[in-house]
Amino acid sequence: MDEEKIQELIQQGRDFITGFGDQDKVEEDYRTNQDLKCPQPPLAKAPMTGNTIGLPTDFEALDIDNDFLHVVNSRKSRRVYTDKAISLRQLSYLLWCTQGVKEIRGKKYATLRTVPCGGARHEFECYMAVRKVEGLKTGLYHYLPMTHQVELLSEETDEESFDSFISDSLEGQSWGAKASVVFYYSCVFYRAEWRYGVWAHPIILIDAGHITENLYLAAESIGLGGCAVGAVAPDLINRRLGLDGKEESAFYAMPVGTVNTDDSEKEQQFYAFVKEEGL
Amino acid sequence: MDEEKIQELIQQGRDFITGFGDQDKVEEDYRTNQDLKCPQPPLAKAPMTGNTIGLPTDFEALDIDNDFLHVVNSRKSRRVYTDKAISLRQLSYLLWCTQGVKEIRGKKYATLRTVPCGGARHEFECYMAVRKVEGLKTGLYHYLPMTHQVELLSEETDEESFDSFISDSLEGQSWGAKASVVFYYSCVFYRAEWRYGVWAHPIILIDAGHITENLYLAAESIGLGGCAVGAVAPDLINRRLGLDGKEESAFYAMPVGTVNTDDSEKEQQFYAFVKEEGL
Repeated sequence: MDEEKIQELIQQGRDFITGFGDQDKVEEDYRTNQDLKCPQPPLAKAPMTGNTIGLPTDFEALDIDNDFLHVVNSRKSRRVYTDKAISLRQLSYLLWCTQGVKEIRGKKYATLRTVPCGGARHEFECYMAVRKVEGLKTGLYHYLPMTHQVELLSEETDEESFDSFISDSLEGQSWGAKASVVFYYSCVFYRAEWRYGVWAHPIILIDAGHITENLYLAAESIGLGGCAVGAVAPDLINRRLGLDGKEESAFYAMPVGTVNTDDSEKEQQFYAFVKEEGL
Repeated sequence: MDEEKIQELIQQGRDFITGFGDQDKVEEDYRTNQDLKCPQPPLAKAPMTGNTIGLPTDFEALDIDNDFLHVVNSRKSRRVYTDKAISLRQLSYLLWCTQGVKEIRGKKYATLRTVPCGGARHEFECYMAVRKVEGLKTGLYHYLPMTHQVELLSEETDEESFDSFISDSLEGQSWGAKASVVFYYSCVFYRAEWRYGVWAHPIILIDAGHITENLYLAAESIGLGGCAVGAVAPDLINRRLGLDGKEESAFYAMPVGTVNTDDSEKEQQFYAFVKEEGL
């Protein structure tokens, strides 16, 4: 591939990262839709099927590691799962810690959640491939943050085919198809663009990182493990979830599962190349 | 401004977000520099001045809120500071929780830190505008993760001018110039590009979000507060820190300071427009 083309793509990427403060990007008369007093989009997506299931919120019943620094220090990427079920309360806790709505600001200006987000836009939707969660059928789900419920989108009775989908959705990272649940994050772009216009997009990615860091820590705090995955297949996930890929698109995922401390050697196999290549 | 141009910029932004898995971006023969076995760049930047100061690591001497869920639930953006000093131990704890090196993988393949990062590249450097930290002179500092030290880059004796710099660096958000310390994050691009090539850049932003979420939580856990700022002035910060802006550029910041629960009304003033505009 042409070196010049590669350098051009690299430079575009670098410019994108530092582009928050890039006033030169636009002409002086540019105003975002919020500046122009356009009506704002809904704070969260409406239920898609209405086939809802409530989530337990008595988190004191969970065995939470309450040594904050220990949670931070112990957290690591975990890709080996024991293929057991997690409880519905554990799933509820993970959803709460990552997208839970604590308060509404104004009449319906913004949701204040357990994670920070630029301008409190919270432009994400959270979907789940549930493999093994007590009390839930195997299938695809959507989180409803305003009522802290999940809704079933589709039951999946062919386990092998469902696991293939999960693996393919993670660009072939088949370890993810042993997780109890895979969280897929989509972005409803206009929710952020309404406020930030052409500057919205770098902030969106940073805000996605806030979510998964809480997911890492919350999972760690209840003895579960996960690993965030950037290399996902948005088109495949969009098709399966019924997202249009234009106004809303999946872009990021994180499998979470049950872990066993005895599996640390298996974890090391993911890094075998480091030793093999003498790095 | 031309609506067509605006839509083009919006589309570019959206494509960037979903671009991890975009294999079409490159020709089939494209290989990243890691694939090509190019030598890898250093895991962290070398000391810039060598004027180092050690950091205390006996964090058990801190009053850490060890109710994990309470920390998650209490965290919010805090922009009103009491303008008091934090201790060097508190600063050390914040640096540890956000960029601390727990382990080296391989001979010198990767640092494993207290935050997750794609491919463990940890392509960030952390700088600080120290206004009020016990035991440190007012000035600009650089964190040295390999030895858990800070180094003084420049002492700032003109407080007014230093506060102006801080405010300008945050695009005029002057509340940041009341913080005890402002963390500035830069990216050393090639550290990630070596492994991820033209796909590196969306991942970089997500990984920055992991860092600031830990900073939010760690600050909250010791009774401090902060607010991450996307709208920064990279050129100004780069000039002041002596970064070339090409291979390494600042792109993100977070002021952290001492907070007072009685100031919640002052915090609300940042959202006065919501009521005024009936949103």
